[in-house]
Amino acid sequence: MNDHPSLTLATFAAQLDFDSIPHEVVERTVNLYVDWLGSALAGKGARPVETIARFARAAAGATNEGLCEVLIDRGRTTPYFAAMINGAASHFAEQDDVHNGSVFHPATVVFPAALALAQAKRASGRDFIAAAVAGYEVGIRIGEFLGRSHYKVFHTTGTVGTLAAAATAGRLLGLSPSQMLDAFGSAGTQASGLWEFLRDAADSKQLHTAMAAANGLMAAQLAADGFKGATHILEGAQGMAAGMSSDADPARLVDRLGSRWATAETSFKYHAACRHTHPAADALLAVVQAHRLAPRDIAKVVAHVHQGAIDVLGPVIAPCTVHQAKFNMGTVLGLVAHHGYAGVTEFEQGFDANEIVVFREKVTMTLDAEVDAAYPARWIGKVTVTTTDGRVFDGRVDEPKGDPGNTLSRGEIATKLHRLAAFSGAASGEEAAQLLRRAWRVAEETQIGPLFDATSRTTVAA
Amino acid sequence: MNDHPSLTLATFAAQLDFDSIPHEVVERTVNLYVDWLGSALAGKGARPVETIARFARAAAGATNEGLCEVLIDRGRTTPYFAAMINGAASHFAEQDDVHNGSVFHPATVVFPAALALAQAKRASGRDFIAAAVAGYEVGIRIGEFLGRSHYKVFHTTGTVGTLAAAATAGRLLGLSPSQMLDAFGSAGTQASGLWEFLRDAADSKQLHTAMAAANGLMAAQLAADGFKGATHILEGAQGMAAGMSSDADPARLVDRLGSRWATAETSFKYHAACRHTHPAADALLAVVQAHRLAPRDIAKVVAHVHQGAIDVLGPVIAPCTVHQAKFNMGTVLGLVAHHGYAGVTEFEQGFDANEIVVFREKVTMTLDAEVDAAYPARWIGKVTVTTTDGRVFDGRVDEPKGDPGNTLSRGEIATKLHRLAAFSGAASGEEAAQLLRRAWRVAEETQIGPLFDATSRTTVAA
Repeated sequence: MNDHPSLTLATFAAQLDFDSIPHEVVERTVNLYVDWLGSALAGKGARPVETIARFARAAAGATNEGLCEVLIDRGRTTPYFAAMINGAASHFAEQDDVHNGSVFHPATVVFPAALALAQAKRASGRDFIAAAVAGYEVGIRIGEFLGRSHYKVFHTTGTVGTLAAAATAGRLLGLSPSQMLDAFGSAGTQASGLWEFLRDAADSKQLHTAMAAANGLMAAQLAADGFKGATHILEGAQGMAAGMSSDADPARLVDRLGSRWATAETSFKYHAACRHTHPAADALLAVVQAHRLAPRDIAKVVAHVHQGAIDVLGPVIAPCTVHQAKFNMGTVLGLVAHHGYAGVTEFEQGFDANEIVVFREKVTMTLDAEVDAAYPARWIGKVTVTTTDGRVFDGRVDEPKGDPGNTLSRGEIATKLHRLAAFSGAASGEEAAQLLRRAWRVAEETQIGPLFDATSRTTVAA
Repeated sequence: MNDHPSLTLATFAAQLDFDSIPHEVVERTVNLYVDWLGSALAGKGARPVETIARFARAAAGATNEGLCEVLIDRGRTTPYFAAMINGAASHFAEQDDVHNGSVFHPATVVFPAALALAQAKRASGRDFIAAAVAGYEVGIRIGEFLGRSHYKVFHTTGTVGTLAAAATAGRLLGLSPSQMLDAFGSAGTQASGLWEFLRDAADSKQLHTAMAAANGLMAAQLAADGFKGATHILEGAQGMAAGMSSDADPARLVDRLGSRWATAETSFKYHAACRHTHPAADALLAVVQAHRLAPRDIAKVVAHVHQGAIDVLGPVIAPCTVHQAKFNMGTVLGLVAHHGYAGVTEFEQGFDANEIVVFREKVTMTLDAEVDAAYPARWIGKVTVTTTDGRVFDGRVDEPKGDPGNTLSRGEIATKLHRLAAFSGAASGEEAAQLLRRAWRVAEETQIGPLFDATSRTTVAA
């Protein structure tokens, strides 16, 4: 029985060596990084993202100075603000990765911190990858530790993400194990993020990831400078588990460290929506394709879901914005039934089209015992479709597209990045291609430098 | 029955007019401001404060530019970082004010935000005072709303302080009621701060106030720029009460707004320690003075306390640092028995002196039904002193020095500021006198400008 699991976890993160990471995990991490780049580009022009970026530039008080790139506009700033803006940007389009078992989005908090510090310190690609893996391994285990009770009220990506970003930043700063524990202590005491925002279609989701990345990076920088944090912030009597969970299991913090590579369990998002909709979306797609059903043939769809889907999607009944619609099961299934895919363009052009609103009315969610029992380790998709002429079809998908056993290929990841860059206008086709060429090789880089050429810097809006 | 209490509270803060504040409340607010200045100066040279200041200067990426003063070193920066550093500085010496009923330290989160934005916008003294009162009225009610269950695990000053700072900042930015509600939403979803740090003597307390002030100011600035927040972040099904309290009472959010001026219920700190020690300290002082007891005459002291004292002070058994000792009942009572006062100098010079360590061993805390029933509205002091020759004395104080009914005079506040400025070296006697002259007149200022003369700017350490 480990009597100080958070120290064990901190030590693992501080001492994680690139050469101890299995090759296939390194490859998967590179894929997750490239996938994240696409999501970060997708945030350009999004109102909440641009608002956070304006705040950050004003708070920095300096114009366009620093070593760290802001990906939406090629601006430069300090690591703190680069992490903040890139963290906001990559969590807007609902295309960033997610780990099923911890119900946590790692990339959107880990890579902003990783890229910012790697650029600031001219770190090697090996250190960049090791730092990212440290963030994933730490964040996923803390998410599993805090459990389902935490996720009912708290946005795990915001709370746990602060510690994941701290682990990543700490690894790049070369923190000792006890300094890494200090970083955890400072990060954990800033962990925050409540789900209440979603019923109002408020902008908090991007604020959560912006601040998780920034606060985590700050926690690590403070620790490097001798700032002390609680030694048991996760498991202590007045720590995160005590305050923010009712089913916390400390053993999960150290679950098979060094042999179970949780990073490789991370799912890519295929559809551009909350992943709680993806299992049902793929199950519906299977039924529609197998039986050649047009949307007008469908009278009713019941999505048999796990409790997390009901908790997160349930409050969203009549979505008012593109972003909120990505949390509405009816809209997602409607887009899938009409277009075969619920991507950024499909949402932008038609989330509230009459046909989609009509389809929405046909969709209900119901808690399914089998699906819920398998959750969150597995996200099984099950739907029951009733046609207008009375036929009933059951659809089922055991691994929605993007899950580790049904993962995206490098070609599909590249296609996705091109699609997102074009959608937001953050990069031309040629720029995206160049970005990809460089990014696929990140593990071999001797020094992480700018991702975009200096001559391509766009004017930073005042 | 108010069906949207957080909107009512936000509206009150947004629309609070200087002329509607009773004159004696304005006077008290000026006193609280001057008292806060002393606490802010006291943080100069404190390791955790200077570490946060170094982080802030590096993150800003600019050298000494901006309109907002950092009080420990006269440096200038943007509002965000001025609030951050001043918020850390004013919560180090344990001399900043506290509101009993909400167990919340208002000044250390409200005035950093107020001063930063007032200087940035050249606000009038009337707006500065109104904004501060808005912060106190909002923060105190939210603290009372979240209640005792919240305080068991969460550091109310850090969590609730974020919203108090947002209210203050929002009032200075001229937010509309609905924008103020957005600010609450963004602030509340970042509210954080766990008590776990205290058992390790970690540095988190100053991080909590730094980030509460900075995050609250950020929330208001974002709201001014159109950033939307949850409309029910306090009372909603997945909001702060749901996640962080088990005895939240929404009626407290709107308790007698505009007729009950909670600002004037705030206590000044006389001793430089956690206020949970002050009632017993004053009760012991009364016994020692009445019966002319020397420390060696005392065999045993039992402090009859409320549960909050046990929750906060209980984990601190053998304090290792000056700051941690301020949370140890035995140390505080020892200093009071030996010196008649437990001030910054007494702690610095002798918190771990042999005689104090010996006295510590004679002190125990016990939960007292009468004291606990009156808590937190009233903080009654009760001790039982047993002498070496077997006499037993009960001491009692209904209002420890600093409570509203036993408040500090302007002369005592000024003396305290001089003492703190001299202790930390943040200002000479002449500079402190000039600061005081200006500060007593703050409500009459047409434009809030620098508090220190430009020629007095100290070199900002790199």
